[in-house]
Amino acid sequence: MPSLIGILGGGQLARMLALAGHPLGLRSRILDPAPDSPAAAVADHICADYTDKAALNQFADGLDVITYEFENIPADCIHHLAARVHTPIPIYPPPLALTTGQDRLSEKSLFRSLNIPVAPFADIATLDSLHAAVQTIGLPAILKTRRLGYDGKGQVVLREPSAHAQDSSSSPAPPLELAAAFQSLNPTGRTPLILEGFIPFIAEASMLAVRSRWGDIRTYPLIRNEHKSGILRRSRAPFGPFDPHAPLPPDLDLADLENQAITATTRILEALNYTGVLAVEYFILPTPSHSPHPYTLIASEIAPRVHNSGHWTIEGSTTSQFENHLRAVCGLPLGDTAMRFPGAAASMSNLVGGWPDPQDPHGVLAIPAAHIHLYGKSPRPGRKVGHATVIGPAPDLDSSAAPVQALADASWRS
Amino acid sequence: MPSLIGILGGGQLARMLALAGHPLGLRSRILDPAPDSPAAAVADHICADYTDKAALNQFADGLDVITYEFENIPADCIHHLAARVHTPIPIYPPPLALTTGQDRLSEKSLFRSLNIPVAPFADIATLDSLHAAVQTIGLPAILKTRRLGYDGKGQVVLREPSAHAQDSSSSPAPPLELAAAFQSLNPTGRTPLILEGFIPFIAEASMLAVRSRWGDIRTYPLIRNEHKSGILRRSRAPFGPFDPHAPLPPDLDLADLENQAITATTRILEALNYTGVLAVEYFILPTPSHSPHPYTLIASEIAPRVHNSGHWTIEGSTTSQFENHLRAVCGLPLGDTAMRFPGAAASMSNLVGGWPDPQDPHGVLAIPAAHIHLYGKSPRPGRKVGHATVIGPAPDLDSSAAPVQALADASWRS
Repeated sequence: MPSLIGILGGGQLARMLALAGHPLGLRSRILDPAPDSPAAAVADHICADYTDKAALNQFADGLDVITYEFENIPADCIHHLAARVHTPIPIYPPPLALTTGQDRLSEKSLFRSLNIPVAPFADIATLDSLHAAVQTIGLPAILKTRRLGYDGKGQVVLREPSAHAQDSSSSPAPPLELAAAFQSLNPTGRTPLILEGFIPFIAEASMLAVRSRWGDIRTYPLIRNEHKSGILRRSRAPFGPFDPHAPLPPDLDLADLENQAITATTRILEALNYTGVLAVEYFILPTPSHSPHPYTLIASEIAPRVHNSGHWTIEGSTTSQFENHLRAVCGLPLGDTAMRFPGAAASMSNLVGGWPDPQDPHGVLAIPAAHIHLYGKSPRPGRKVGHATVIGPAPDLDSSAAPVQALADASWRS
Repeated sequence: MPSLIGILGGGQLARMLALAGHPLGLRSRILDPAPDSPAAAVADHICADYTDKAALNQFADGLDVITYEFENIPADCIHHLAARVHTPIPIYPPPLALTTGQDRLSEKSLFRSLNIPVAPFADIATLDSLHAAVQTIGLPAILKTRRLGYDGKGQVVLREPSAHAQDSSSSPAPPLELAAAFQSLNPTGRTPLILEGFIPFIAEASMLAVRSRWGDIRTYPLIRNEHKSGILRRSRAPFGPFDPHAPLPPDLDLADLENQAITATTRILEALNYTGVLAVEYFILPTPSHSPHPYTLIASEIAPRVHNSGHWTIEGSTTSQFENHLRAVCGLPLGDTAMRFPGAAASMSNLVGGWPDPQDPHGVLAIPAAHIHLYGKSPRPGRKVGHATVIGPAPDLDSSAAPVQALADASWRS
């Protein structure tokens, strides 16, 4: 039975994994080059680069299983760990999920191969292929690096030549603009790009699911998300209005949406022979009237790991995403993914950049039903330093969630 | 705002305190002479004796607040820490609570001074005083050391001369028997003892409460407890039947019992000018028919710390006893002590001696709604190595709690 878990990466996700492990009798060892890694307070810390082979050997020595907290791990690192033929250590989620999630083209191709709705996309290796793809996909569209993009970085929105030319929707961007965008993301000529059609979504969603080593699958309720400046601002589960004054469209069938998400997420888990927690992000798009579904979930991306949009599961679910990820990768029985009690709703607000009130970092705690999670990080603009969660019966949630969100929003300005 | 907490003792209570601290941004440092202290996995560890003054100075250096996880801390240790006049560090709960809880006579005298029902008791300094007290209190009675008793150790039950002499209930134990009991607990003549009248209780209970630095008080629901061989076997909250086949007496008024507990517990908190979580253990005794209360809560003992009977609060309460203790001693707002959802009940079973199944230490996890907490300790007969908690709507709790209890009971045999 596993007792020592290796985690590649030592940020807040590793910290919350390690915290969830201790009650299960599981200790963690992290590998992270940052001396002040948030997880180091609750786990052993090998402080070294992911490509340092001696450190990787030291990291792997005595581990029962290896997992990871972020998807941009160098392929060399995984190859080196997977190649320990004399003392093999299982790596979960499977490296195929990691390489798929690292490459937007592989990711979107996987969705398409599984008949999961996806935005139109095209592989962009040359400026010529960009011109051709714009003709097919149309504008607006988003040109992105295939790899290593995060929080809105590594992408350019391609728009119509003139914002006023609303009646020329089929006219392509002028060649000069396309060339500039291509050059900005691919200055060396060696950065593979992807062009994605723009999705005029009405809301963002994600589904977290966990699959055991033996193929058992449990899904968490569909989550509603909202980003700001490319960073997750808040999540709410089950999917619902963030604000009582901004209701959802009356024809939005939440059960239908959740079923679409379960179908798609399950297909992805099985196609990847996945073990652990997987997050899939979706856009919600009104569908043409002849569709059986008034709204369609469009798969956007996968994260082969625990995910920011599931932090509310610590208090809101019977079993948190962190505990369930550990249960899965360690071969333990999966835990219940239902809301903690019937009718419960959860709201999660990120603290980004600083504390809501630098003089009173725990002010959030004065709000009933609010829970705070600080990551032990120094404040810095754009840096996630913690999150706050509110749990309550769905109709009463807003009376606590609104003041918590106001405090969280204040953190973004500091 | 505090960020580094010192905890005297590094057992499972310190471990769960430290685990609760990390999300609040609070790190812990423990002092414990055991190299394999359970809390050392999640806190800095000063491995030294409690009377080692150099180690105490090293422990105290840079702390924002000091607390403790067990009550048998040598008085010298507290005096040394409290005497740091140049860099005073607040110590919570207050040392008065510690010294009161360390001495059964002080404890019982406090109850009596606060008009809290208590078993008859007498200070026993000499064999003559024991003879006199037996005349006053009657038999059966329990002779105990005033200090350092735990888990049924350091006590002798004094009974009637003959178990068959049921009609001689007022006759004292023979002088020889009293002398032997006195001698066994006080072989040096320097161990102060106490004689306590026997309480024919129908059930055991405890109440946990938390008081802030500013005097705010919140109480958790009344807890039902059951001991086995002097060790807590299981707890249930709110107070109720452990087993649907063993219902409570129909005239047991739970609201009345809880009110008695709130009144008594609050008086104790205020009399001690307490800060932190306090546990008070009670016996439930049928009252003579002329009483306004059909059953009376008899105060048994206090624990000036987080308590085994409150471990279910991790999942069962909005704010756990561990988080609320930290909030209190750090001067943060107290958290809600209500059950996690209306109608919820919690059942906690101790794992004592070993795992339920040594081949499958996580078998408990296959039971829906069950949570496991292992302490990182090696199995040993009579040693608490973990606990399992089940949360559910009150009427359905037993379907999960019964199999968990069966597994937990199996641990006692290993």
